[in-house]
Amino acid sequence: MKKNIPVAVSKRLIRYYRYLLALDMSNVSKVSSNSLSNKMGFTASQIRQDLNHFGGFGQQGYGYNVKTLLNELGTILGVKSSYTAIIIGSGHLGSAIAYNFNFAKRGIHLKAIFDIRVDLIGTDIQGVSIYDIKDLESYMSSNKIDIAVLTLPKKDTIEIVDRLTKCKIKGIWNFSNMELETNKNIVVENVHLGDSLMSLSFNINSHEYPDDNS
Amino acid sequence: MKKNIPVAVSKRLIRYYRYLLALDMSNVSKVSSNSLSNKMGFTASQIRQDLNHFGGFGQQGYGYNVKTLLNELGTILGVKSSYTAIIIGSGHLGSAIAYNFNFAKRGIHLKAIFDIRVDLIGTDIQGVSIYDIKDLESYMSSNKIDIAVLTLPKKDTIEIVDRLTKCKIKGIWNFSNMELETNKNIVVENVHLGDSLMSLSFNINSHEYPDDNS
Repeated sequence: MKKNIPVAVSKRLIRYYRYLLALDMSNVSKVSSNSLSNKMGFTASQIRQDLNHFGGFGQQGYGYNVKTLLNELGTILGVKSSYTAIIIGSGHLGSAIAYNFNFAKRGIHLKAIFDIRVDLIGTDIQGVSIYDIKDLESYMSSNKIDIAVLTLPKKDTIEIVDRLTKCKIKGIWNFSNMELETNKNIVVENVHLGDSLMSLSFNINSHEYPDDNS
Repeated sequence: MKKNIPVAVSKRLIRYYRYLLALDMSNVSKVSSNSLSNKMGFTASQIRQDLNHFGGFGQQGYGYNVKTLLNELGTILGVKSSYTAIIIGSGHLGSAIAYNFNFAKRGIHLKAIFDIRVDLIGTDIQGVSIYDIKDLESYMSSNKIDIAVLTLPKKDTIEIVDRLTKCKIKGIWNFSNMELETNKNIVVENVHLGDSLMSLSFNINSHEYPDDNS
């Protein structure tokens, strides 16, 4: 199923999904577009328009059923595609992601972790085994893997991306600080934590604090 | 110095900064708006317009001097404000950020880490000491701290934000999975890694792969 949803819309859908997931986990069953609007900073009419784009899930005056909407958004966003993932690099960041990040909640099954350090190979992080990076190709040939999470040093990135491409990986969640581009074979999501911190600095620098003397 | 730069422009400036930093580290001294455009996916005229907004750093036909432009963008973005930061929560994610993230490159001095686990207190991560969270207020009263990086469990977030607000922290880089809002006292940058992974899933789901049968 291929869709043409503008990037800006998809970003908003992802935010709706996150917010609805939090409501659902708090056992909230209905939500109005006005209430979504207040919480999320989009106008209610923007929200109605975004959701109507996919058939309109709400009833005027009744609001949205949280579970139904989550379900529909999940389908649109591919949460139900049951993708599988591996992490490459089990250093501090790779371990933090393996320990803390809830892949399952996003419909993704974390199946394996790869590293070069022999002392780690054969150990596991919360039940997910750490394998030798030498065995990447043989593992990939017997396991259908869709996504690779790259938490390895920048210098090793190009070689690994080349190997993953040959293994027909579909997507890369890239924490390696080397900007990668989506091409016909691989979809890339680059994570630039530095940009987020720079944005914070910039906003602090521009903010008027109550007792600001600058 | 307070400026009114639209959010969309500031996001682009941050990307220019990241890209220029990489060029500078590779000893590239000049870059044209066309070359920036090819690499970054913005049009050359968009780039010229963004940069002219701040006085125009380039000369027609000569391109931009990388160091000069970095310097100017750094000033605009507050990289040179020499902000200080603390990390609250030295679990897997807090440690990963303390170990791997180059604060100094973004003009920020990481001064301390706080945790509740007694076995960690008194130890350090790459020379940055871990203190008892009980001592937050006394530490803040004798050290000027601008930014708190929150890598603590969601359940502890509200209490800590309340304490940080009383200590007049300026900004929060929030990894806690509890959405916080910027208010008159505190600027917040929420990091939602889940959104980034959902965006990847969505893009994989929408992508046409060469040997796609779906």
